[in-house]
Amino acid sequence: MFAAKNEFSSLKGKELLITGGAGMLGSSIAQFAVPAGAKVTVLDNMAPLYGGNLYNLHGIAAQVRFVKGDIRDQKLVSQLVRGKDLIFNLAAQVSYIDSNLDPFLDLDVNCKGHLTVLEACRLHNPAARLIFASSRFVYGRIERNPVREDHPFNCLSVYGVHKLAGERYCQFYHEKHGLEALIFRIANPYGPRQQMKHGKYGILNWFIRQALEGKPLTIYGDGRQARDYIYNDDIVRGMLLGAMSKIPYDVFNIGSGTGTAFGDMARLIAEHVGGVEVVPRPWPKERYFVETGDYVGDISKIRKALSWEPKVSIAEGVARTVAYYREHCARYGFKAYSAASKGVITSSARRASGAKRRG
Amino acid sequence: MFAAKNEFSSLKGKELLITGGAGMLGSSIAQFAVPAGAKVTVLDNMAPLYGGNLYNLHGIAAQVRFVKGDIRDQKLVSQLVRGKDLIFNLAAQVSYIDSNLDPFLDLDVNCKGHLTVLEACRLHNPAARLIFASSRFVYGRIERNPVREDHPFNCLSVYGVHKLAGERYCQFYHEKHGLEALIFRIANPYGPRQQMKHGKYGILNWFIRQALEGKPLTIYGDGRQARDYIYNDDIVRGMLLGAMSKIPYDVFNIGSGTGTAFGDMARLIAEHVGGVEVVPRPWPKERYFVETGDYVGDISKIRKALSWEPKVSIAEGVARTVAYYREHCARYGFKAYSAASKGVITSSARRASGAKRRG
Repeated sequence: MFAAKNEFSSLKGKELLITGGAGMLGSSIAQFAVPAGAKVTVLDNMAPLYGGNLYNLHGIAAQVRFVKGDIRDQKLVSQLVRGKDLIFNLAAQVSYIDSNLDPFLDLDVNCKGHLTVLEACRLHNPAARLIFASSRFVYGRIERNPVREDHPFNCLSVYGVHKLAGERYCQFYHEKHGLEALIFRIANPYGPRQQMKHGKYGILNWFIRQALEGKPLTIYGDGRQARDYIYNDDIVRGMLLGAMSKIPYDVFNIGSGTGTAFGDMARLIAEHVGGVEVVPRPWPKERYFVETGDYVGDISKIRKALSWEPKVSIAEGVARTVAYYREHCARYGFKAYSAASKGVITSSARRASGAKRRG
Repeated sequence: MFAAKNEFSSLKGKELLITGGAGMLGSSIAQFAVPAGAKVTVLDNMAPLYGGNLYNLHGIAAQVRFVKGDIRDQKLVSQLVRGKDLIFNLAAQVSYIDSNLDPFLDLDVNCKGHLTVLEACRLHNPAARLIFASSRFVYGRIERNPVREDHPFNCLSVYGVHKLAGERYCQFYHEKHGLEALIFRIANPYGPRQQMKHGKYGILNWFIRQALEGKPLTIYGDGRQARDYIYNDDIVRGMLLGAMSKIPYDVFNIGSGTGTAFGDMARLIAEHVGGVEVVPRPWPKERYFVETGDYVGDISKIRKALSWEPKVSIAEGVARTVAYYREHCARYGFKAYSAASKGVITSSARRASGAKRRG
């Protein structure tokens, strides 16, 4: 945390609003910002199948103002944006699979919700700086790798279409109303604090749950499709550096900048957890359509503009993530089995054993 | 009409649904398609300030099935798309100025409404071919003229953002669900059958009303900004050629392909109507933001793909449009004065005098 304090010392005294702040990225921003001296307000609707989890704010909860509410609530959002220096707008419907099954819900959250935040800023706090979480899914079908920010938008999901609309809102509110806004197109995020309830998004984390539960990992197709896995903390550092910069508006890819084969990712997890089988299977229908083709983001733009580098290799990131969920699995709704004994390791059991060792 | 019959003979027996079919483009498609033997259903909500006008269907009304209703009505739209060969999805909130004043209304009509049509097609008629009216406003701030289809999307209006979303929906429903869809990015449309109630869009037509009412024409700024004015019938011919083609999916600019200075357009109307003053004024605030910068579309793609050419020069188009509104102004809510006498020429007066001459 000392490194974080130094790197983010300019956050001291700043007022932050983080929508979706109980989710993986939002809570991780809070986990960096609170020790740096920022005053953090978290807005999260805690929708059951989404990423909101109060345990994500563990250790800083007392210093955070938590508001349970929805970004589509115009009155609430209007109150919350007032006086904020930095607004991290991360609340979203985040499953591209669900977006294609219920496009109207995705429209409501990812367009109307985001528009509500921007309108509130225009009316009540036009001096705020906005950070918007966009996605590699705006590119959809990839024409060439590595993907630069000017790659065509071949959205293969309603989620991608609406993330693109969210981005263009930011640009419009910047150009017309002077709002400052930075957009981050996130590759394949993973790491501690992501939801583990289902595998509709965040496949790496889902594999870690499967592995910790002693279940086999299913590789889709030949497992050679390249993905750009980026560790939670690396994304959060990029967003915070962007927030603290003076750049009035821009769009950045954020990713590892390197491709990892899907199968290699699975094998890495299997080896790390131990005693886990990797099984090839055909692509599930819903996933196949949006996921086919390699994706590797070109991250030269963010490197240059924000002096940002991804610091956590996939091996290191997987190790940290496995360790986190081994320890805290009960907080994320599952039980981890030890690879060797197949005995259940719950958080409380580990805490007890840790206490014993320390005692 | 004989030329139209020949050019569009493959429409014979085809079932067409035209949303926004009482507006300028929709009704003009019907005016071409009905004589060619198509079976036309028009859906229009007849919203007071929008373009719907039953007089636009004059002469073919008896052969058209007219449904008063809204594209946001899921049940109605689901019924209407069934059995249609070609769906022209033109219903929209069309004022970019209003879109910035009430972004949520624009979202509702231009995203939710369009998504409703696409979902209805997916569920009830995936074999339909869709024609979608997009706009030059997806480009927003222009970086280079002439503007090709791969120009960046610097949307300067919420309208532009939502038209872009509408386009990307089409692409997604094509790639995922096999729906065929052609998208036309319309430059500055003008011509007969456009609404004349206000000047929030369709400035050329609005100038024609001003001129016919004997009022001066206001040129914004220095009047040198280039616009790409495209005559109604030329757009409609392009859309119909696209509908009859076998192209499964594509995006086309549709425009004259040439720039006309705003001031020259005004002077052309003033000269044509006669006795009308042209007055320079500063840009109104709302218009300035979205309208600054030249726009000339590159139309080489549509030329090649559909063997389409704009046929009506701006001089010819203005002459035809002035003639239309001199004759039918009462149907569009205003009274035309003759330039020479300043006497009122209403449709009925003209019909009476015509009858006299013929008698």
